[in-house]
Amino acid sequence: MNFDNDDIQFDKLIVQEVAPRDGLQIEPTWVETADKIALIDQLSTAGFTRIEAGSFVSPKAIPALRDGEAVFTQIERRAGVIFVALVPNVKGAERALNAHADELNLVMSASQTHNRANMRMSCEASLVGFGDIVRLAKHFPVSLNATVATAFGCPFEGKIDEDRVVSIVDTYREMGIDGITLADTTGMANPRQVARLVKRVLQRVPAEALTLHFHNTRGLGLANVLAAYEVGARRFDAALGGLGGCPFAPGASGNICTEDLVNLCDEIGIPTGIDLPKLIALSRTLPALLGHDVPGQLMKAGRNCDVHPVPDYVRAI
Amino acid sequence: MNFDNDDIQFDKLIVQEVAPRDGLQIEPTWVETADKIALIDQLSTAGFTRIEAGSFVSPKAIPALRDGEAVFTQIERRAGVIFVALVPNVKGAERALNAHADELNLVMSASQTHNRANMRMSCEASLVGFGDIVRLAKHFPVSLNATVATAFGCPFEGKIDEDRVVSIVDTYREMGIDGITLADTTGMANPRQVARLVKRVLQRVPAEALTLHFHNTRGLGLANVLAAYEVGARRFDAALGGLGGCPFAPGASGNICTEDLVNLCDEIGIPTGIDLPKLIALSRTLPALLGHDVPGQLMKAGRNCDVHPVPDYVRAI
Repeated sequence: MNFDNDDIQFDKLIVQEVAPRDGLQIEPTWVETADKIALIDQLSTAGFTRIEAGSFVSPKAIPALRDGEAVFTQIERRAGVIFVALVPNVKGAERALNAHADELNLVMSASQTHNRANMRMSCEASLVGFGDIVRLAKHFPVSLNATVATAFGCPFEGKIDEDRVVSIVDTYREMGIDGITLADTTGMANPRQVARLVKRVLQRVPAEALTLHFHNTRGLGLANVLAAYEVGARRFDAALGGLGGCPFAPGASGNICTEDLVNLCDEIGIPTGIDLPKLIALSRTLPALLGHDVPGQLMKAGRNCDVHPVPDYVRAI
Repeated sequence: MNFDNDDIQFDKLIVQEVAPRDGLQIEPTWVETADKIALIDQLSTAGFTRIEAGSFVSPKAIPALRDGEAVFTQIERRAGVIFVALVPNVKGAERALNAHADELNLVMSASQTHNRANMRMSCEASLVGFGDIVRLAKHFPVSLNATVATAFGCPFEGKIDEDRVVSIVDTYREMGIDGITLADTTGMANPRQVARLVKRVLQRVPAEALTLHFHNTRGLGLANVLAAYEVGARRFDAALGGLGGCPFAPGASGNICTEDLVNLCDEIGIPTGIDLPKLIALSRTLPALLGHDVPGQLMKAGRNCDVHPVPDYVRAI
C-alpha cells in the first residue's frame, strides 16, 4: 500500500471499543453500574460494531468489573453491535453466557510467566480450560475469540519467540476458535515486528477474524496500527480516552486511544463508520467520571478542522 | 522500504535535539543559565551531532530564553556537534553570530496568520529580513537553515496549500539558504500527507539538508517520522522528555520525544548513534528542573529490555 497515492480507496478499519473492559478494569475509583451502562449505550450509538463491554473474572481479582452480569443484561442491545465479554475460565464463560454476551474473548499469554501472573495458571492449564469453554459454547448462540497476550513482548520475560505466537494461533484455530487477537499487553511492539508477525498470522487467519490490540506505553501505538493495516490487518482494539492497562503487568499503561485512532483514519481517508465529534464529547466526560486526566490527546487538542480564533493583536498587524 | 524485511540495512537517522530551544521556550518556570548549560553539555556527550541550543528573539516575547548569549558562549563546544540558534530577524542573527552559533535557523510560517501571530509581521516582511540575514551571514563561518512553520496545517487557517510550502522551499533555496526544515508546529500532520509532501520536497532538497519537525499534539508524531523516513527523509527534530510547544500557536503541545524516537529506532534497527540509557537518565531529571511531569513515555516505562522482577505469588504457582 502507498499512503501517498492520492487515488487509493482504503478498506474499512474496524475499531472494537474496549474501554468498558480494558479501560475500567484498572481504575481505582468504582464506576457505578448505571454509569457503565450509560457509557456503553452512548458508545453503541457512535458507530461501533463491536464493544468489549466487560469481563467475567473473579471479583477479588478485578473488583472494578464485578458487576458484569448487571451491565450485560441492562445495556441496550442494538442491531449490528456485537457485545463481547472477556472470560478467563469456564466459570466466567457460564456467567457471560447467562448474561447473553454475543461473543466470548478468551485470554492466554504467550509468556508463561505473564500467564501465571495474570491468570494464576500455566499456559497448558489455560488451554485445557479453553477446551471446556469451546464445548460449552457449542450449545449457545455465541461466537468465540481468543487472545494471545504478550504476543509482542513480556514485561517479565522480555522477547517472545514469534514461532510460539504463531503456534498458539494454530492451536486456537484447531480448537474451533474463529477469532484471534494478538495483544501487545504492555506496549512493547514496534512497527517492523508488527508487520512481520501480522503477515505470518494472516497466512493462517482471515483478516476479518484477526484483531490487533496495542497499548501506547512507549508512544508507538498508532504507528503499530498503520504497520498492521499496511500488511492487511483490518480490526483493532482501542479505548476511549486511551484508558487501560493490565493490573497484573508491571509498567502497563493505556490502550491506544479510540478517538486518536479514528482521527488518524479520518485524516488519512480510511473509513471507520465512527462519529468522531460524538466520541470526543464522550471522552471529555471521562475525567469527571474517573477523577483523573486521561491520556487521550484529541480530546485535549481538538480536530485539525477545529481552528482557533485569530487573536486581536494579529488583526492589528 | 519494507520494514518487515529482515535483511535490510537502515540508513542512519539524525536526531537534532531541540529541547533547549523549543522545549524551554514555553516553560513558565525560569531555568537558570547554569542549568541550561549543564543540560546542553550533557546532551552533547550523548551522541547528538546537532543541538538547537537557544534562540535570539526579543526577551519580551520569549523571556525564558533571554540568556541566549550566556548559554552559547559558555556551553562546551565539542568537535562534531553543531550548535544551532533560532533567529527571527537580522538583529537576532547579529546576536547569535556574536555568540558564535554554528548555524542560524530562520523561521517563517506558511500561514500568513500564524506568521503574524508568531513573528508579528507578514510573510513578505519575513523574507525581506531573511535577505538581510543571508547577506550578513556571508561574512561569518556559519551555516543557514530556514524553517517553514505550519507546513502541515495552521491552528488559525486550517489546511495549508502544499504548493505554497513547496514554493517557500524554492524561495529559501534561491536565497542561498541550504538547510530546510518542514515544521508541523501544532501537530496537524498525518503520515499520508507527510509522505506526499516530503517526496515532493526531496525532489528539490537533498536528504542531508532536510529536517522534519513534528509535534505529538494528536499522537501521530512517531508515525509521521516513519512515514517521512520511508520516503527518504533522514533528519528529525525531537525534544528530550517531549517538551515543547509554541507560545503563539493555540493548542500547540510537545515536540516528539527524543528518547521515545531513539527507542523506536533502536527497536526497529535504525542507527542513530545516540546513547539511549544516558538520554533516559537525563530525561528523568526534567520534572525536578521544570516542576512538572513531562510527556515522554519511555522515561516512565523504561526500555523493553528493562524487564520487571517476577512477583512472589507467581513463583508460588
